Amino acid sequence: MIIVLRLGHRPGRDARLSTHVGLAARALGADAVIMSGEHDENIIESIKKVTKEWGGHFQVSYEKNWRNVIKNFHGVCVHLTMYGLPIQEKIDEIRKNKDILIVVGGEKVPAEVYQLADYNISVTNQPHSEVAALAIFLHEYFRGKELDREFKGGKIRIIPQARGKKTDEG
Amino acid sequence: MIIVLRLGHRPGRDARLSTHVGLAARALGADAVIMSGEHDENIIESIKKVTKEWGGHFQVSYEKNWRNVIKNFHGVCVHLTMYGLPIQEKIDEIRKNKDILIVVGGEKVPAEVYQLADYNISVTNQPHSEVAALAIFLHEYFRGKELDREFKGGKIRIIPQARGKKTDEG
Repeated sequence: MIIVLRLGHRPGRDARLSTHVGLAARALGADAVIMSGEHDENIIESIKKVTKEWGGHFQVSYEKNWRNVIKNFHGVCVHLTMYGLPIQEKIDEIRKNKDILIVVGGEKVPAEVYQLADYNISVTNQPHSEVAALAIFLHEYFRGKELDREFKGGKIRIIPQARGKKTDEG
Repeated sequence: MIIVLRLGHRPGRDARLSTHVGLAARALGADAVIMSGEHDENIIESIKKVTKEWGGHFQVSYEKNWRNVIKNFHGVCVHLTMYGLPIQEKIDEIRKNKDILIVVGGEKVPAEVYQLADYNISVTNQPHSEVAALAIFLHEYFRGKELDREFKGGKIRIIPQARGKKTDEG
């Protein structure tokens, strides 16, 4: 199981970024996202709606107590942070594990997270985006195979085109 | 030159996502971002500030007329869209080009963009995030070498740590 834990969500300000974290997690092969911070049912519902329409078995939930999510996780916890060790040096070691909790923060991550995590991993040591960092982490973890994943049971499917948009619905 | 063109920016609603597009472009090896849509000096300034503090030569600008940006570009134009052809089938061909304009949209991309682009490329055919799609595109284009890039001339540099935060400033 690959689970993404999104820390510190604030409704309004973080709405779209947290949605992007959840949708990128789903599209790029994670099994679930857990939202933390303030409870925001809109985010949960919008990601559930995508799974219903586009298929697959992605789970979305909210947990107020992120600390317990990390402490109770049975696999390894990878915190993505620009202060951590480079992904390119650690991914082979991390890839040996099948159960991973990927923790992504927003702007202020409690210092405790750096201690609770098994790995603090950077996707470059430059400031950029938790969505971009998550995407590259998943892409590296799955060695690009996540791009060929099929999402079964959805109502909509895209037929890839060189130009324009084509979908198969029903 | 690798230039990212962000279409359809709306101040407020898109502020943080457009910032993430710009910062991810910079951190992952692009040379410039051009913002289009509504003019939003705050976004431009916040990305410039990151470059000033963290180094490198990233350029940020605003162009109202995105159509001319695409038409006047001397290299190949790659539009990232979930309706396009899979990146894993096209990246080797695209990588032969040194000058690339990567176009990323927001929620509504004009149909014309699909016609103007040399390539319409998908990073999965699932709905997710232009930030995630851009990150994986750049990571694939540079074959992961972008992660080792150095940003010279900045005021702040992170010393990667297994735990905690360490920076070298000055």
